[in-house]
Amino acid sequence: MVALVPVRWSDMDAFGHVNNVAVLRLMEEARVEAVARLARPGEATMLDTGVIVARHEVEYRQQLAWRREPVPVHLWVTAVGGASFELAYAVGGGETGDETEIGTAAGDDGGAPVGRAITSLAVTTVVAVDPGTGRPRRLTEHERAVLAGWTGDPVPFRARASGTDR
Amino acid sequence: MVALVPVRWSDMDAFGHVNNVAVLRLMEEARVEAVARLARPGEATMLDTGVIVARHEVEYRQQLAWRREPVPVHLWVTAVGGASFELAYAVGGGETGDETEIGTAAGDDGGAPVGRAITSLAVTTVVAVDPGTGRPRRLTEHERAVLAGWTGDPVPFRARASGTDR
Amino acid sequence: MVALVPVRWSDMDAFGHVNNVAVLRLMEEARVEAVARLARPGEATMLDTGVIVARHEVEYRQQLAWRREPVPVHLWVTAVGGASFELAYAVGGGETGDETEIGTAAGDDGGAPVGRAITSLAVTTVVAVDPGTGRPRRLTEHERAVLAGWTGDPVPFRARASGTDR
Amino acid sequence: MVALVPVRWSDMDAFGHVNNVAVLRLMEEARVEAVARLARPGEATMLDTGVIVARHEVEYRQQLAWRREPVPVHLWVTAVGGASFELAYAVGGGETGDETEIGTAAGDDGGAPVGRAITSLAVTTVVAVDPGTGRPRRLTEHERAVLAGWTGDPVPFRARASGTDR
Repeated sequence: MVALVPVRWSDMDAFGHVNNVAVLRLMEEARVEAVARLARPGEATMLDTGVIVARHEVEYRQQLAWRREPVPVHLWVTAVGGASFELAYAVGGGETGDETEIGTAAGDDGGAPVGRAITSLAVTTVVAVDPGTGRPRRLTEHERAVLAGWTGDPVPFRARASGTDR
Repeated sequence: MVALVPVRWSDMDAFGHVNNVAVLRLMEEARVEAVARLARPGEATMLDTGVIVARHEVEYRQQLAWRREPVPVHLWVTAVGGASFELAYAVGGGETGDETEIGTAAGDDGGAPVGRAITSLAVTTVVAVDPGTGRPRRLTEHERAVLAGWTGDPVPFRARASGTDR
Repeated sequence: MVALVPVRWSDMDAFGHVNNVAVLRLMEEARVEAVARLARPGEATMLDTGVIVARHEVEYRQQLAWRREPVPVHLWVTAVGGASFELAYAVGGGETGDETEIGTAAGDDGGAPVGRAITSLAVTTVVAVDPGTGRPRRLTEHERAVLAGWTGDPVPFRARASGTDR
Repeated sequence: MVALVPVRWSDMDAFGHVNNVAVLRLMEEARVEAVARLARPGEATMLDTGVIVARHEVEYRQQLAWRREPVPVHLWVTAVGGASFELAYAVGGGETGDETEIGTAAGDDGGAPVGRAITSLAVTTVVAVDPGTGRPRRLTEHERAVLAGWTGDPVPFRARASGTDR
C-alpha cells in the first residue's frame, strides 16, 4: 500500500532538510494508517488495544527536501510472527528521480519498491499487545490475512553497521 | 562517555510512555554532545561544518517512563571509516534495574554497557560532510584520535529483522 | 481561506488529546500555506526571504481529538501594518458540533468563523524580514493586496489574561 | 522560581534559531516543574489527576539561539481563580544582555523579571481538572498557599494584537 504523508515545515532542522528523526515521524504516520487497516471497519484497532515498536532499522539514501505536497510512503510486509510482524517502508521525495520510479515488480501491494526517487528505506518490528496484561498477544486470523496480502521482498538495504554483535 | 539527557513531558505519547521516535531524539541530544566534543575547544564542530546521519538501528528492550531526572545515555564507538563512524548508544531509565548496573568492562569510555536498566540500544552511522561541496570528507587526525578513545564492543542486539536482504 | 491540516498521531500527549503546543504546530502549517500564497506564483516567498513570529495569543475552547481526517483551519487577517500583519485562526475538529458550522458572514475569505465545532482560536503577529539585514522590511504592494482580500473581523476571544500590564 | 530548561538541537528550525513553537515547549517543561511542586511531596500532582491549558499569550522579543547550556525560565503567578491560575514566564538566553540581568524587585519568587537578556515573555491560564468528571475542580488550600508564594507583577508585554474583540 502507499500512504501519502504531508511533510511539515517544522520537520526541517537547522540544516534545511527534513531531519532524520522527522523521517521516522513520517513513517509513523504511514504505519498508523497501516495498523488502522488491519482491523475490520468499525472494530477497535491496535491503536486502541495496544501496539509496541520493538525495533527500527533505517537507511537514509538522500536528503528529503521540505515541500508542500505529500510524500509517498510505500509500505509492505517482510515477515509475520506469532505476535509481531515486520513492516517495511520506502519513502519517496527524491529530487534526482521520477516519483513514478518507485514501483514494484509485484504491483502496488507487494514487492520492494525500487528507484532513484527513494530517499529512505526502513523496517520496523511491530508487536501486538494485550490491553489487559500489556503482554504480546497472538495476531488474529483476520490480521494475518490482511498482512499476507501486503507481503513483499526483503528490504534492499545497501549497508549494515559493522559494529553489531550477532 | 555518558550524556545525561532530560526527558520532556511531551516525549510521552498517548500510551503514556516515551515514544519510540522520541527515544531517537534523546539519542540525538547525546550524539550532538559527542559530535561537539570531536572538535578542539573553540574550533568549529561538525554541527557547524556539516554532518549527516546515514543509518540508524534501534532495539527497544523495555518502555521508558517519563521522569523528572535526566536519563543516562552511554555512548561508544563501534567502527571508524574514512569519512564516517558508527556511534552506539545504551539508554538507561529502566524501572526493573539499578541504574548503576549500566556499566562496562572497559571503564567509562569503552565497552558496551550491560545491565537490566537498559531501555534501548542503538547504533548510528555518522558521516562528516564538507561544507563547500556537501560531499563526505575525510575525518581529521584529531577526530580519529578522539574516536579511538571511545572505541568499544559491538552493540549486543538481541534480534535482527529477517526481512532484510544482505 | 481554509487550510486542511492533517493531525499526526504523535500530536497527542499522555492525556490522549492533541497537545496544546501541537495545536500551534497545526496553525503553523496553515500559516506556512498562507505565507506561501502571499507571493506571486514562482517567486520567492517569505519562507525563503525571512519571516518572524512576534507574538501568539491562543484560546483553547475544547479538546481536539486525534483523527485520521485533516482538521480545517480557517485563516483570516485582522490587521496590516507597515512590516507586519496579524493572522487569525479558527481550528475545527470539535466533537460537539457540525463541521460545517464553522463559517463566516462574509464568505470563505473574510469574517471571523463561528460555531460549536471550533476547538481553538488564535492570532499571530507575522513580521516580514529583509534577508540581507535581518531587520523588518515593508510589505510589498502585492502582499498588501492579497492580505486585503483576507481581511475579516476581530478574533472573538472569550477571555483575556488578567495578569498582563497594558 | 527559576527552571533551568535545556534547549535541544532539534528545537531549531530551518532559519537556525529556536522555533517559536519550540519556545512553548521550553515553557511547558518549566510549567510541568511548577505544577509538580504544587502538590505535597509524595502526593499525586495535577499531572496525574488532570490539568488543562486554556490559553497562551506569548511575546517574542529576540531570537533564541541554540546553545549547550540550559536556558533559565523565570516563573511567577499573576492571578489565582477558583479552579485556575495564570502562570507567567520570562525566558532568558538573549545574546545582547547579561544573563544575570533577569531579576526581580521582589526576589527570586515574586515580581516580573526584567532585563535585556529576556528572549520571550508569556502567560498561560492553567485549569485544574477532576480526574473523574474531566470538569474543572476547585484548587486546594495547599495549592493556593503555594501559588500565593509565587505571586508577582503583571507580565510587561509591549504590544497586544489589535485584531481581537474584547
